[in-house]
Amino acid sequence: MPDAPPRPGSLHVLLRRRDGASGRFEKDAVVVEEPLEVRIREGRDAEPVRLLVTMRTPGDDEDLAAGLVFSEGVVESAEEILDVSGLEDPVVRPEIARNVVVVTVAPGDGSARALRRRAVSMSSACGVCGDVSIERVGELAEAARRARKDGTGSGPVVPAAILSGLPNELRRRQEIFRSTGGLHAAGLFEADGTLVVAREDVGRHNATDKAIGALLREKRPIPPILLVSGRLGFEIAQKAALAGVRIVCSVSAPTSLAVELAEETGMTVVGFLRGETFNVYCHPGRVG
Amino acid sequence: MPDAPPRPGSLHVLLRRRDGASGRFEKDAVVVEEPLEVRIREGRDAEPVRLLVTMRTPGDDEDLAAGLVFSEGVVESAEEILDVSGLEDPVVRPEIARNVVVVTVAPGDGSARALRRRAVSMSSACGVCGDVSIERVGELAEAARRARKDGTGSGPVVPAAILSGLPNELRRRQEIFRSTGGLHAAGLFEADGTLVVAREDVGRHNATDKAIGALLREKRPIPPILLVSGRLGFEIAQKAALAGVRIVCSVSAPTSLAVELAEETGMTVVGFLRGETFNVYCHPGRVG
Repeated sequence: MPDAPPRPGSLHVLLRRRDGASGRFEKDAVVVEEPLEVRIREGRDAEPVRLLVTMRTPGDDEDLAAGLVFSEGVVESAEEILDVSGLEDPVVRPEIARNVVVVTVAPGDGSARALRRRAVSMSSACGVCGDVSIERVGELAEAARRARKDGTGSGPVVPAAILSGLPNELRRRQEIFRSTGGLHAAGLFEADGTLVVAREDVGRHNATDKAIGALLREKRPIPPILLVSGRLGFEIAQKAALAGVRIVCSVSAPTSLAVELAEETGMTVVGFLRGETFNVYCHPGRVG
Repeated sequence: MPDAPPRPGSLHVLLRRRDGASGRFEKDAVVVEEPLEVRIREGRDAEPVRLLVTMRTPGDDEDLAAGLVFSEGVVESAEEILDVSGLEDPVVRPEIARNVVVVTVAPGDGSARALRRRAVSMSSACGVCGDVSIERVGELAEAARRARKDGTGSGPVVPAAILSGLPNELRRRQEIFRSTGGLHAAGLFEADGTLVVAREDVGRHNATDKAIGALLREKRPIPPILLVSGRLGFEIAQKAALAGVRIVCSVSAPTSLAVELAEETGMTVVGFLRGETFNVYCHPGRVG
């Protein structure tokens, strides 16, 4: 293997490749996983406080931070996000600072936001975790339901042939996966199958937050279709519902709680989307 | 599809199966995902306090809780776990109570344990998350390093042919996956390839905790080989190192941080274990 520099998000390690009884040493790429700390401040003059830490693949960190503060309910609209930037603190060593992002949000009802913030707890793959209660899971579901209360029957009808083409479209944009085999991807698509934004991460939840966050930062609308490369669990369904996605698709299996939340929030769930065959788990009217 | 009752951990939903232009409605199984709250009490007379919530597939909940209190550093040995049981509280509704497990631990240095407990925060797929700091990630790594400080060079040498056989062995024991396609599995194996314990969950981190926890509850030693069905990230490497696993295997890709931690803690990492071919990322001396 030539000694080309690894792609962003991956690094080369020396490994021993075994094939039957023989083995040889060579270099190959592995996907990078590092903790990202998101700090938040209310207004540009406030001191940033620690919000959460997630394990993620470096890259598009500002998108991830923006997506997280939205999907965790710390802000309710793109307009509340004033700024997303790296940590500028001369006393912090660069190798720490590159794993910190500061989100500046509009000062609002301090106590309500503080309450939400305390309730926030997440991970690169779950988000409903940490020192939180079972009630918190209910709260997240409730937030998703509230956000979607008027949209149950709305949204486009998408021909099956367009849905069938989405996985290939997403795969074409997956750069790191090709070199490491280790990354998940999330893509947001228009109803005609146009890919609007795609993001990769070691966690598909992070990939989803990065894709949504990228559009939030640009104050662009969230398109109606989300496709994730892995399993579709509760948390991705929650993020999708909150962002206004109408059809959430996975190349793999959905979980019971994801289908339940989608049913209640009026989202269509498409699972095992692999070429021409797929399953529609709820609200099948949007698949033409 | 016949109307056989779903297996534990899965439930039937009505879905529309599409194949090309045609679609038909039928029932199929999806994997169940529900929050589990782990409560802990120091001594049998103390009041249980909430430790964490994780999204999991119901089943082997006591194993999961035991594995979690160990891998999160709340206890350091099986002997500290006095009891693991469901919630017995007549005022709590059964549908809530079945998602709560109480772990009774030996009363010890109250302040040290309280400190560890406050630091604990996890998810069904990450464990290094929540309202924690980047330093917490370092602490978890450090705990794993400390636990393994004497074992760097120890452990069995396992023939490649035995490693190659592990995925099939694990798959044979995966019951829910067959019906839903939605579950991860973790298996602990002896050096001769004997499967000691296998567990399933919607999160491979939970599956790992369930497998380790099952043995902790029976005060049985942890065998040297762990195989997980999905990607091998930092957290699984941390759990494996803490439990004393010597060879950690994945059918998929390891991440950079997993390889780094394994390198430091003297664990062998085997990735892309698919039949006769696989990669050894560090400490290859244990693969014969």
